[in-house]
Amino acid sequence: MLEVNLPRLKESLLELADIGFNPIDKGIYRSGFSDADMAGRRWLMQVAEKDGFSTEMDGAGNVWLGLGELTKPAVIIGSHLDSVPAGGMFDGSLGVMAGLEVLRVVAENNISLQYPLRVLATAEEEGRFGGMFGAQAVTGCLTPEWILSAHDADDVFLADAMRAQGLNPMDALDAAWPPDQIKAFLELHIEQGPVLESEDIPIGVVEGVSGVFKWIVHLKGKADHAGTAPMHMRSDAFMGLADFAHEIQRIIDEDGTDKSRITVGKVELIPGYPHTVPGEAIFTIVGRDMDEEVMRELATACERALRAIARRHRLNFEYKEVSWLGPRYCSKSMIALMEQKAAARGWSYKRMPSGAGHDVQFFSGMTEAGLIFIPSVDGVSHAPDEWSHWHHVEMGANLLLDCVLAKAS
Amino acid sequence: MLEVNLPRLKESLLELADIGFNPIDKGIYRSGFSDADMAGRRWLMQVAEKDGFSTEMDGAGNVWLGLGELTKPAVIIGSHLDSVPAGGMFDGSLGVMAGLEVLRVVAENNISLQYPLRVLATAEEEGRFGGMFGAQAVTGCLTPEWILSAHDADDVFLADAMRAQGLNPMDALDAAWPPDQIKAFLELHIEQGPVLESEDIPIGVVEGVSGVFKWIVHLKGKADHAGTAPMHMRSDAFMGLADFAHEIQRIIDEDGTDKSRITVGKVELIPGYPHTVPGEAIFTIVGRDMDEEVMRELATACERALRAIARRHRLNFEYKEVSWLGPRYCSKSMIALMEQKAAARGWSYKRMPSGAGHDVQFFSGMTEAGLIFIPSVDGVSHAPDEWSHWHHVEMGANLLLDCVLAKAS
Repeated sequence: MLEVNLPRLKESLLELADIGFNPIDKGIYRSGFSDADMAGRRWLMQVAEKDGFSTEMDGAGNVWLGLGELTKPAVIIGSHLDSVPAGGMFDGSLGVMAGLEVLRVVAENNISLQYPLRVLATAEEEGRFGGMFGAQAVTGCLTPEWILSAHDADDVFLADAMRAQGLNPMDALDAAWPPDQIKAFLELHIEQGPVLESEDIPIGVVEGVSGVFKWIVHLKGKADHAGTAPMHMRSDAFMGLADFAHEIQRIIDEDGTDKSRITVGKVELIPGYPHTVPGEAIFTIVGRDMDEEVMRELATACERALRAIARRHRLNFEYKEVSWLGPRYCSKSMIALMEQKAAARGWSYKRMPSGAGHDVQFFSGMTEAGLIFIPSVDGVSHAPDEWSHWHHVEMGANLLLDCVLAKAS
Repeated sequence: MLEVNLPRLKESLLELADIGFNPIDKGIYRSGFSDADMAGRRWLMQVAEKDGFSTEMDGAGNVWLGLGELTKPAVIIGSHLDSVPAGGMFDGSLGVMAGLEVLRVVAENNISLQYPLRVLATAEEEGRFGGMFGAQAVTGCLTPEWILSAHDADDVFLADAMRAQGLNPMDALDAAWPPDQIKAFLELHIEQGPVLESEDIPIGVVEGVSGVFKWIVHLKGKADHAGTAPMHMRSDAFMGLADFAHEIQRIIDEDGTDKSRITVGKVELIPGYPHTVPGEAIFTIVGRDMDEEVMRELATACERALRAIARRHRLNFEYKEVSWLGPRYCSKSMIALMEQKAAARGWSYKRMPSGAGHDVQFFSGMTEAGLIFIPSVDGVSHAPDEWSHWHHVEMGANLLLDCVLAKAS
């Protein structure tokens, strides 16, 4: 049984973690198409070239490493190289560097494979410009209009950010692969949640990425003086919001599953003065589940609850569905393969949904696609104290290796 | 029975309402010591001089009108001339202009009174600089340190604002009256709440200004990805806040009175992103009651509830008591007089607390003091659509006249 070389993988991950590192907050800053992000991509190509692998940057800024007869359909090992601002060293980077490690193991052992291997380091997965740009490009999910319209929260346009890095935005459309040239897509990622750690399970076999809807809700009552307005005569928009929050667990218990999530993450009260009864509450609801029908039931239950609460508190109720993304499923055959390979190594594993989006979700519709999770310490991610234990890194990379060899043989 | 002249009172109120009027939002802008505020004061002095009353501006910017033998203890009719930004035309102005109307009625009818009458148009009652400056000055509740430290939300110092209007800040200390020179203090004000209107009662006889405490509460849990963190593993600070809000009515039912108010008016969630479980919630609690012992019980109940909720949601709980002001009571004899005079005119009235602060609260400790309310349409105040019906204005002014005559005879 082949094994990855943990000291080598570790060294590469630590070297990459220096690029974009901020010594003040200890976070990594490799936002999509920033200088540090591009430096990370160039570094990866240099390292891979030194090892004798083919390298290429496509029109979307994705870096491709190759091994084998590159004319045949490829087994792609992919994840992203960009980071959120003040991010950690494993999010995305783990999957790319584990992919490089798989190439190294295959090359140094002179393994002959039926299909070539590609490592894909995607560009801009974290959504600085509102999508998963690199994966969208490869899977043919871009349009010229989208490329030219996309901008970040500071109104920097994607097209300008690409040009500043010497890239021609329209070349991203050339990055699309024909589906028949992709044999399979495999990703290794940290869980970014607390489940595996809390259940002491080293491997998560991901069944898919849960669907998500986002609402902006507006409850409008009447701003009153907090001293002169008796409690029973108020139309307090915040109390309406609080009543809704109180219903969330009931809604999940009645209409959801153990994979359902409903979150109120952002709240604005108007006018927002201590001595004024809040006349308006504007807040977000983000709902998730692995089953689109369940998502619909959760959304309906939220709406029913809010309508009733609005009547009770004499509030006007409006909401806008900002987005609705259905769940994306990993391939059943890939899930079975991952479970079989984990069992063969004698490891416990858990089939689980991913609550966060990943590159794999764009490949799941066009090829056999799968995603492996390893535990995150305290479930932390998108923060400088994101961490995963090295023994879990090694297990995840070995399972990735086993599955890649199975698909490419 | 003497009667105020409503057309004359109305004309004066409308004339004053032009000073600081903003034609864009239809609000009145006479913030304490602004140019418009000072213009209002000068206008009042001119009008009163023309009518033959004595006029004076004291060191705190208060305007005094006088009628009678001014060496004897005075019956003071007072309220304020300043407004909140975008305020209405009755808040404060009503009490001052009704006072002027009382002087006019007494003068034109050649009524001989045992005690002189004074109308006091106080400066800066709305708290731009954090107090009720004019009333504090007259009642001896100022110190040099306070005068020099006070500043507004834009860090403009009271002392500078006064100097810019040609006033010497330290002269405010000379504005204090010896208690034995004040025979009584009477104020007429709009209710600024919905109670009188909803109960169809034209007159409120105020028993006092309720005490108020203000807390800033900090619940701290853990910011998590809204997709990857299962519901039962979260430390969601917002859900803690929502649970507390849900307890407010129970706390009032168990520990409060029908005069109790508990309001959450300001909420900040950190980080405040739709897709992130809120790690921190910082919010205000403002509690009120007419009984200081009840206020203490409400505060204790809030603390107990928050501690239990924090344990349940695995949150850290801290709070800071920003202020604690005990209730202030109007004089029992003045309340009795007001009720007797309202009954004599055959009007219904309601004894009620004031949830908002008023000039009267500084006089209640040093003299016989009372406050009359008239209904506010929809309970609105501190807004351009603040309104009170003219027949209620007339009733309030007539009751003020009756009570002033009774105290000054």
